[in-house]
Amino acid sequence: MTLIVYGGSLSPFVRKVCVVMTEKGVDFKVEQVNPFAPPPEFLEISPLKRIPVLRDTDQPEPNTLSDSSVICDYIEHKFPNPPLYPKDPFLRARALWYEEYADSILAATIGPGLFFQRVVKKMMKQQPDETICAATMSDKLPPLFDYLEKEIGDRQYLVGDAFSIADVTVGTMLVNFAHAGETVDAKRWPKLAAYGQRLHERPSFKGFIEKERPLVQRFRAA
Amino acid sequence: MTLIVYGGSLSPFVRKVCVVMTEKGVDFKVEQVNPFAPPPEFLEISPLKRIPVLRDTDQPEPNTLSDSSVICDYIEHKFPNPPLYPKDPFLRARALWYEEYADSILAATIGPGLFFQRVVKKMMKQQPDETICAATMSDKLPPLFDYLEKEIGDRQYLVGDAFSIADVTVGTMLVNFAHAGETVDAKRWPKLAAYGQRLHERPSFKGFIEKERPLVQRFRAA
Repeated sequence: MTLIVYGGSLSPFVRKVCVVMTEKGVDFKVEQVNPFAPPPEFLEISPLKRIPVLRDTDQPEPNTLSDSSVICDYIEHKFPNPPLYPKDPFLRARALWYEEYADSILAATIGPGLFFQRVVKKMMKQQPDETICAATMSDKLPPLFDYLEKEIGDRQYLVGDAFSIADVTVGTMLVNFAHAGETVDAKRWPKLAAYGQRLHERPSFKGFIEKERPLVQRFRAA
Repeated sequence: MTLIVYGGSLSPFVRKVCVVMTEKGVDFKVEQVNPFAPPPEFLEISPLKRIPVLRDTDQPEPNTLSDSSVICDYIEHKFPNPPLYPKDPFLRARALWYEEYADSILAATIGPGLFFQRVVKKMMKQQPDETICAATMSDKLPPLFDYLEKEIGDRQYLVGDAFSIADVTVGTMLVNFAHAGETVDAKRWPKLAAYGQRLHERPSFKGFIEKERPLVQRFRAA
């Protein structure tokens, strides 16, 4: 059996899938695909031109799946242990909600507003637009961080009392926030700051962060 | 037990949830919320300002769920029969993929490009921009319909041999396409045209379409 993840390792969506497989102890390999210039044949397996795509060579062709949420659901059903989705239907739905929240609004704010400016643009030998970054930090992100601070409350994890897909997805977006050179203000959002730190200390996250950091630092210093 | 769906009945996402509950024979009621002018308290239960929201009075508060995909997953887990998600992990993932495809690109093309112009604008006493509608029909939709035509192939349903969440979601987007006064060109996309017709003849879809049609016709004629 071979599981192949196609995508760039700095993508929060690619990392999300990789963290899920790492948490489950599943072997996989990553084949780099630049989402800004995917090879023509990539569009065949990713109709929305998104990364990651997963290929499972156990399956008859077409043996690919596109969309990080779809891929994580597949991994969960193929490798149920340890479970990363709550068993209770309502808690499960809450976890899916946080996944959607992180994949949509959090990604759409941190991505173009910080990570694209400070990392991707530098990769492409362009200068970041710091006006966009400043507006993201002062106006766009605070309501989202306020929401997450309230939702985390006094819990260790977002849903119930176990690490779940909700934490994977919020956690991976916070990695890109950190890669862009920002930290969660622990005075304003103490629970979110501690929560992010807890997530990033898990071996699954830590391994990817440590591998990615030198690459990010090289781009940012260029 | 009371299940309350908050949302406007012409929304494809609200209809998606209602079709799922109808297929499962679940009782529910709909409370109208105008997504273009939601009441202030609505933002509390729908942080992304989306409709539908589901309230399940069986649950302790906060007993609401936002996002149509999250709600459908909840309904499936709370009322497993008849199942609307394939059992096999890979087929299940394929179904989720079509759900995502319909919820994102199909909705983003049919919604602003046709339904908003010809129905929502008329509701708001404005005139549709037919240039936008023409570009949708000539340029934007054809590649999506080509993709669906190929995916449906010679099957009755999109995934495996049973009606699933994939069909609910593509089907509800095609209802809005029809409400906007368009039909799938059966010469160019014979399989998609026949598939859409099959879906809309199911009692679950048919009931909603028949209830909505006079409302849509009233708006369009205004």
